[in-house]
Amino acid sequence: MSLIEKLQHKIDFKTKPLGSLGQLEKIALQIGQVFNTLTPEIRNPHILVFAADHGIAKEGVSAYPAEVTPQMVLNFVNGGAAINVFSKQNGLTLKVIDAGVNFDFDDSLPIIHQKVGKGTKSFLEQAAMSVDQLKDCLQKGKQIVQEIYEKGSNCVGFGEMGIGNTATSSILMSILTKIPIQDCVGSGTGVVNEALDKKISILKSALEKYKTSEVLDEKLAHFGGFEIYQMAGGILQAFENNMLILVDGFISSVAFLVAYTYQPKILKNTLFCHCSQEKAHKALLNHLNVKALLDLELRLGEGTGVALAFPIIQSAVNFLNQMASFEEAGVSESI
Amino acid sequence: MSLIEKLQHKIDFKTKPLGSLGQLEKIALQIGQVFNTLTPEIRNPHILVFAADHGIAKEGVSAYPAEVTPQMVLNFVNGGAAINVFSKQNGLTLKVIDAGVNFDFDDSLPIIHQKVGKGTKSFLEQAAMSVDQLKDCLQKGKQIVQEIYEKGSNCVGFGEMGIGNTATSSILMSILTKIPIQDCVGSGTGVVNEALDKKISILKSALEKYKTSEVLDEKLAHFGGFEIYQMAGGILQAFENNMLILVDGFISSVAFLVAYTYQPKILKNTLFCHCSQEKAHKALLNHLNVKALLDLELRLGEGTGVALAFPIIQSAVNFLNQMASFEEAGVSESI
Repeated sequence: MSLIEKLQHKIDFKTKPLGSLGQLEKIALQIGQVFNTLTPEIRNPHILVFAADHGIAKEGVSAYPAEVTPQMVLNFVNGGAAINVFSKQNGLTLKVIDAGVNFDFDDSLPIIHQKVGKGTKSFLEQAAMSVDQLKDCLQKGKQIVQEIYEKGSNCVGFGEMGIGNTATSSILMSILTKIPIQDCVGSGTGVVNEALDKKISILKSALEKYKTSEVLDEKLAHFGGFEIYQMAGGILQAFENNMLILVDGFISSVAFLVAYTYQPKILKNTLFCHCSQEKAHKALLNHLNVKALLDLELRLGEGTGVALAFPIIQSAVNFLNQMASFEEAGVSESI
Repeated sequence: MSLIEKLQHKIDFKTKPLGSLGQLEKIALQIGQVFNTLTPEIRNPHILVFAADHGIAKEGVSAYPAEVTPQMVLNFVNGGAAINVFSKQNGLTLKVIDAGVNFDFDDSLPIIHQKVGKGTKSFLEQAAMSVDQLKDCLQKGKQIVQEIYEKGSNCVGFGEMGIGNTATSSILMSILTKIPIQDCVGSGTGVVNEALDKKISILKSALEKYKTSEVLDEKLAHFGGFEIYQMAGGILQAFENNMLILVDGFISSVAFLVAYTYQPKILKNTLFCHCSQEKAHKALLNHLNVKALLDLELRLGEGTGVALAFPIIQSAVNFLNQMASFEEAGVSESI
């Protein structure tokens, strides 16, 4: 028997009706394959929260002012944000990464300082970043995942913070999936009615203005997102290291999409933790032909969907390792 | 400000976009109201798994033979079932109750022995139990919840095991909701195709044969379910004690429905943890106008949906108690 057949057999002969653990059975099968074992173990799971500012924020695409990005980074450092509460509760190590916030953080703060710039430029006016900066982002993202891998982690979740980053993500989704921009735009943290119409119109005109290049890296650099590309680099490295990859909400999924464009095989290592209220997220998950574990009507980011889904992922591993089989328990099988 | 206004204010001024924690915000609001405080705390949470046999099982309405009920009870005692794994992982105290299994368990086993009979009679032929037995079930269910309450618990989940109990539950659902029986029947642990048609036809004829009484207790006694009525009693007592009530899948929800028929106010103390693959469950949740937290395609029972949802419920309590407010964190509010 192949490993996948052995895993399926092990799952099927646990003391429960066939298939009755639903998605948990699929997750157990997938994790067994990722770690190439009948007795998988999640070790030292991390959540990495990448923060950066976006030039497009000054065009009024967000419900919050740009200074909220550094303020929230400091909130993460002080333990006051939702992701602090949930990752602490569920035993996930949280690391906060300055990928490009427009603020000078004190060096002594427990932040991973790997700023590529002090926010991107507005892609309505010019390229958000250079191709060199894009490559720098990917490299820095890879490096941080490599570091946690070397310290014994085999599971990493990707969260983010960055005022304006749903706008950036919408454009990237439209470019990479060919789905029309209006179907890739949502309310973000709370943009509604006329403000939402304005957001869509800004993004449409940014796309119309951009005719420069069909080269992938040049397009990515034009529309930017320092945190998004550091996440994409991290995801690629996690795959290289054969780690389990946990994707959060809309922006995290767009970072996954960028990484997936470079390397489609990453899909097999990845679990999608939460389907966001951001309407484009469902379209993106459909495009990738995947289903998210949770739908709790969240639209927060920060990796909160990962942290909330983590106990369920752990449950999938635990039933595979700890439940009795029919034979072990002396329970009769189906008639 | 009323308590509900104070709770909503506390939720709204946490460092996150308004409403962005979705269902967690609703849960926090509900739990704060149940425990009548701005700083709720879940103490000593329990899962009670009630087991019993059903006379109707001999008509071939289940994919498993009736001896699986005592075999699975012994599996619970030995720690080998899914509910053992998940409740241990998530810090829930598990108690197994013999409400009416057709087997003599050794007195020394860690089972709460409160058998009302050795399985019900087949309601295709006669009343499953007497009205006295129904009352005995309700009383015994109340007693066990009262005991855990007196030991300091304020949160209790209700799971079950009983070959044939989806058939019983389907009839009870149809009687209590007036939804036609064919829309209340599903596959249970794995009844499909012709076997499912047979299950529906057996339940239809059981209903047609029954014309004896319109008295609620007599109807309930006729169609039975020792574990279902002990659960219903437990749910009523949990409400009396102002505890948080966690409902599992289809059968647990039918036990809730029975309790709700006696006392509709219990809804405000209750969270529905998982929407089962059993198709009637969604109809029942719609009938009650509630939404379940998870949809992981489970159809196992045992309280597994409760145990898997529990960390998310705890997260709702934790964000309310532990997250910083905008003011505390120095984060700017919405523009």
